[in-house]
Amino acid sequence: MLWRKKTRDSHTKTPSSLSRRLFLRATTALVGGTLASALPNRLATAANAENLPPNLPSWSQHLGFSVDDRPYGRPSQHEGHVVRRSVKWLTATRESSVNFTPLHELDGFVTPNGLCFERHHGGAPDIPSQDHRLMIHGLVNRPLLFTMDDLMRFPPVSRFHFLECAANGGMEWRGSQLNGCQYTHGMVHCVQWTGVSLKTVLDEAGLKSHAKWLLPEGADSAAMTRSIPMEKALDDCLLAYSMNGERLRPEQGYPLRLLVPGWEGNMWVKWLRRIEVGDQPWHHREETSKYTDLLPDGKARRFTWVMEAKSIITNPSPEKPLSVKGVQQLKGLAWSGRGKIKRVDVSFDGGMNWQTARLEEPVLPKCLTRFYVEWNWDGKSVMLQSRAMDETGYVQPTYADLHQVRGENSIYHNNSIQTWLINPNGEAENVRLG
Amino acid sequence: MLWRKKTRDSHTKTPSSLSRRLFLRATTALVGGTLASALPNRLATAANAENLPPNLPSWSQHLGFSVDDRPYGRPSQHEGHVVRRSVKWLTATRESSVNFTPLHELDGFVTPNGLCFERHHGGAPDIPSQDHRLMIHGLVNRPLLFTMDDLMRFPPVSRFHFLECAANGGMEWRGSQLNGCQYTHGMVHCVQWTGVSLKTVLDEAGLKSHAKWLLPEGADSAAMTRSIPMEKALDDCLLAYSMNGERLRPEQGYPLRLLVPGWEGNMWVKWLRRIEVGDQPWHHREETSKYTDLLPDGKARRFTWVMEAKSIITNPSPEKPLSVKGVQQLKGLAWSGRGKIKRVDVSFDGGMNWQTARLEEPVLPKCLTRFYVEWNWDGKSVMLQSRAMDETGYVQPTYADLHQVRGENSIYHNNSIQTWLINPNGEAENVRLG
Repeated sequence: MLWRKKTRDSHTKTPSSLSRRLFLRATTALVGGTLASALPNRLATAANAENLPPNLPSWSQHLGFSVDDRPYGRPSQHEGHVVRRSVKWLTATRESSVNFTPLHELDGFVTPNGLCFERHHGGAPDIPSQDHRLMIHGLVNRPLLFTMDDLMRFPPVSRFHFLECAANGGMEWRGSQLNGCQYTHGMVHCVQWTGVSLKTVLDEAGLKSHAKWLLPEGADSAAMTRSIPMEKALDDCLLAYSMNGERLRPEQGYPLRLLVPGWEGNMWVKWLRRIEVGDQPWHHREETSKYTDLLPDGKARRFTWVMEAKSIITNPSPEKPLSVKGVQQLKGLAWSGRGKIKRVDVSFDGGMNWQTARLEEPVLPKCLTRFYVEWNWDGKSVMLQSRAMDETGYVQPTYADLHQVRGENSIYHNNSIQTWLINPNGEAENVRLG
Repeated sequence: MLWRKKTRDSHTKTPSSLSRRLFLRATTALVGGTLASALPNRLATAANAENLPPNLPSWSQHLGFSVDDRPYGRPSQHEGHVVRRSVKWLTATRESSVNFTPLHELDGFVTPNGLCFERHHGGAPDIPSQDHRLMIHGLVNRPLLFTMDDLMRFPPVSRFHFLECAANGGMEWRGSQLNGCQYTHGMVHCVQWTGVSLKTVLDEAGLKSHAKWLLPEGADSAAMTRSIPMEKALDDCLLAYSMNGERLRPEQGYPLRLLVPGWEGNMWVKWLRRIEVGDQPWHHREETSKYTDLLPDGKARRFTWVMEAKSIITNPSPEKPLSVKGVQQLKGLAWSGRGKIKRVDVSFDGGMNWQTARLEEPVLPKCLTRFYVEWNWDGKSVMLQSRAMDETGYVQPTYADLHQVRGENSIYHNNSIQTWLINPNGEAENVRLG
């Protein structure tokens, strides 16, 4: 990329700066012949003399591959670096592991299914859909047993929702300061889910008057369970069987997972095989030994369900340095477990001054929202931050503010503002302010 | 599935009919022991006596697979039948072929990238992104040559848009009557695209006053070209580099394709390497020998760009027969190249009576829209049809109406109402009315 820095850049913010640079390079490059394989000879008559196109590229000179050989498509061979990544030291075994979404490589707010981060506690089973059952039992009038075909005979509902692990940002909180937004913020993804309203299915079973809590359980070897209050269950929870149009991926709970929109990911029980209805929470393993917030005084907060408003600048980031001065498109993602993102501000000086970012439509509740800021880089150091606000008025806190409330003990629910230090060489570093 | 038909169904439309059936089956099945491997023993204490769960399923008894071994995920092994399919006799070679989206297997309106239908004329090249160039030349003030990095320095735009081949439904029109919605309607898909506004890039080049038409050209061996009027180019066209968050798949034009929202798919030139600006259309090969509509009098209509409002019932369909009487969820997709879908009606008697379907939100312009009707099947023959209306007031025509205008000669732009005949055995047939 070094050649780019040799071009004559105008560092002003005038709209013509980018075009001037491009024009100059186009002319220079073609005269110099450095793009010799880029464009075909037969364009010569159509193009201006100074812009004479060189030879046909090799891929225009022979037939491409037969797509019929790929009944289920895959990415370009040139995009092999765009993958989920795990952190070997983070978990004791690969059967209890977590991998991270490459946020810095993504656009829009839909995460493609192959790149959705995933956390599992006992490996991922690949269950035959026709053999899977869901049982609803406990404080219900009629215990019910469902096949997948049964569930698909209830009214389908599709919604876009982000899914974030409670531990997203946990390594940051504990000071690991991994250098890349894939690791600092990559335990989040967003797809269009389809399934059945949990309320519809509970209504079918008939709740007894003292039914106040649910215990969903997974069919994986870890038998993941969490206690869910009835109010949330009847509000917007779904029993999902599809993501981005196709059936769930095995590591995302195929054939059935619970959706608890806006709440921490471990409650979205995968490979869902039963829902017990009770009158109080169960305090099972995964809501006592894990997934509780340890307060400064050594006591644990009982439950912390909601994923509060958060944002991250994905470009530039440690994985995506700046390679040229001048006009830049800053890109990032924001989300809130309480509803829609209302505004995102971006700072270039570590939080002293802020400017409002452009939000990409549609802005949907409990869904990732893409934001952009066009800016001009003069080659000096910059301290980049983003700050999300949601429709409830909640403002994403600084690390210092959150630390004052939380202390050092907690791991989960770090939604504090992230800082990238852009160095004069264009590289971005993960730094902590305050 | 035959066992389902042996259960005692109540064929009324009362809301409790489904639950009664499920309850009965749950009880019967468990007593009978036919679901012997479905639910774990240790639930026994929690469940009612009549609902005693059998043994733990095998997948709960051992660790699942390590997801770290799948840095780029793939569908469940049990979903291997969900693939794009081609029709061998339709094209002379596999290098000029087309494959079809399995619409009957999909939910929501997002198509996963691996299942997006695709048409190519000379195979699909897999071009190294860093070696690709786009040239803008012709009637511009400054001919420009862009790298992919250059294009990504313009403001990004993301939008959901369907893409439909002009020939979608062409086999129907010619009477092939292939039995399945994958073949009758599967040359359509819908993703979240990200790219740069074409207007932005043209403004950068500076249009001369007599610049009225564009000729985009692909870098594949077929060098696909189409003439695009300037009004459309400046309205909502995009130069797209991403789909559903990740870079375009090779068969979708990686690294760059033109988007012409709402217009026929062959204009969405893939592997886009140049855009020539001119003062009149070119009438190149792919807009004369192909992709024109031959009228009854033997003359060809010069251009037919817009994909008019259309809809298809995906479930039930020939690939997805009804397997049980009683409550059913009819599902389908509707779209219009002129904007948003306003309403979809469904008929159960071949178009004599209609009822309005439920539309899934968000309803976006030039985007697939999912519709549903809950209905009760009494086991008799049914003639299913769907009819889309868009926000301009346009109503999807019957085959008879369209045929009267078009005659037999045309192949493209068949947006007529499709009929599925549901037989008493639950199977769906592709039939033509009128």
